[in-house]
Amino acid sequence: MRLTTTEFPCTDSDKHDVEGMNRGLLFRQLFEKTSSTYTYILGCQKTREAIIIDPVKETAPRDAKLLNELGLSLRWALNTHVHADHITGTGALKQLIPGVKSVIYKAGGARADHLIEHGDVIQFGGEEIEVRATPGHTNSCVTYVHHGGRMAFTGDALLIRACGRTDFQEGCPQRLYKSVWEQILSLPEDYSIFVGHNYEGIEQTSVAEEKKFNPRLTKSEEEFVHIMKNLNLSYPKQIDRALPANLVDGELEEKHEA
Amino acid sequence: MRLTTTEFPCTDSDKHDVEGMNRGLLFRQLFEKTSSTYTYILGCQKTREAIIIDPVKETAPRDAKLLNELGLSLRWALNTHVHADHITGTGALKQLIPGVKSVIYKAGGARADHLIEHGDVIQFGGEEIEVRATPGHTNSCVTYVHHGGRMAFTGDALLIRACGRTDFQEGCPQRLYKSVWEQILSLPEDYSIFVGHNYEGIEQTSVAEEKKFNPRLTKSEEEFVHIMKNLNLSYPKQIDRALPANLVDGELEEKHEA
Repeated sequence: MRLTTTEFPCTDSDKHDVEGMNRGLLFRQLFEKTSSTYTYILGCQKTREAIIIDPVKETAPRDAKLLNELGLSLRWALNTHVHADHITGTGALKQLIPGVKSVIYKAGGARADHLIEHGDVIQFGGEEIEVRATPGHTNSCVTYVHHGGRMAFTGDALLIRACGRTDFQEGCPQRLYKSVWEQILSLPEDYSIFVGHNYEGIEQTSVAEEKKFNPRLTKSEEEFVHIMKNLNLSYPKQIDRALPANLVDGELEEKHEA
Repeated sequence: MRLTTTEFPCTDSDKHDVEGMNRGLLFRQLFEKTSSTYTYILGCQKTREAIIIDPVKETAPRDAKLLNELGLSLRWALNTHVHADHITGTGALKQLIPGVKSVIYKAGGARADHLIEHGDVIQFGGEEIEVRATPGHTNSCVTYVHHGGRMAFTGDALLIRACGRTDFQEGCPQRLYKSVWEQILSLPEDYSIFVGHNYEGIEQTSVAEEKKFNPRLTKSEEEFVHIMKNLNLSYPKQIDRALPANLVDGELEEKHEA
């Protein structure tokens, strides 16, 4: 499937003014401090169409304001998966910016305007991203690849020197190992990797770096599974609030009990 | 003055493989959560020489580890000014990585291995940054400009939709207004601006954006001075601890009284 808009037809030659450099792309990384979540804005410089990846409910007004100031017209609000640690901002952005469509991978069972599949392409102006299914942290996990900018947005499948936990929400270390190696670390080594979270203030990594320094994924599958089954992590702080809401674009009415 | 190292002579033709694109530059932005400080690593891809701008004492081990993993050899540890809100990591990095030299603008009266002046150029491999004095938040404030990457590192002189306060530490709103307009917003509009802090998770801005949307600096000088004199900000949390230490590369022995 190809998600597209027809208002701004771009030819292939519009896409890259300079060989190897994606001059057509406007790119911004944003951070939400409470859940240490990264949000990404990608815009087509020429048509001003844009997408947002993993917005957070609390910072949706910030994102809408910045999109407006940058003169961008938001078309798609994408989740990399059904998040357990914060409420997605896709629903809030739909309220703030009329016409925005939410997008999520269909395997997670969540509601969205468009349910995507492995291999789909999401187009915004002269730019496009490829959808790669990368389950294992959850069933709903995808990685978005922007080949023009040599970037991958991995959500929680691959984190910087780490990876998403696999001990709840359909988690499976074997599936995650296969996903990361076959769909992410198989990309060219110079591809930048932009992740869903980092708790140490590191903002990006690369395929080369994670192939060399990821302390879990550089191990054999057997060792990786052993590591993942013995992390002894605490229960996610916001999961009981976040999961039900994230199945419906983050728009669930929250009940406040006395 | 030109700060340079002679080990890796680079010719001008090495610097940019593709017209308009600084392929030779490795760039990383990092974040320190407690003080919401941004730290920047810039490295020459060819020679692996690097600089760091505004490291924080607490995150210096993280920075040293990342520099090592990226195969970078840190030469200069730069401050944009004598910080009041956190202790600089330049001293800590000197301890962690032998041979690193600290750098600060001489007008601030702080100690460093190299005291720089307006117009100086700091070279690392085939890359270089220009020093522009931008006093007004403090006397010690400079902006570092990397023309190849079309980027300016403004410290606290210019912040995203804001600017550094001018109510202590030699602050002067008139000087700041002049500095920002003459040395920063006079750069080409497509230059990216990377700041010292942001409290809302926004990671970068541009000359064009601040010329259009900065709520203080788009005003007349008179209005700007009025705004700055009526901010009624609280006393900086870490100032009593940070200022004395930052006059000596952050290496002051801290006394813990009972």
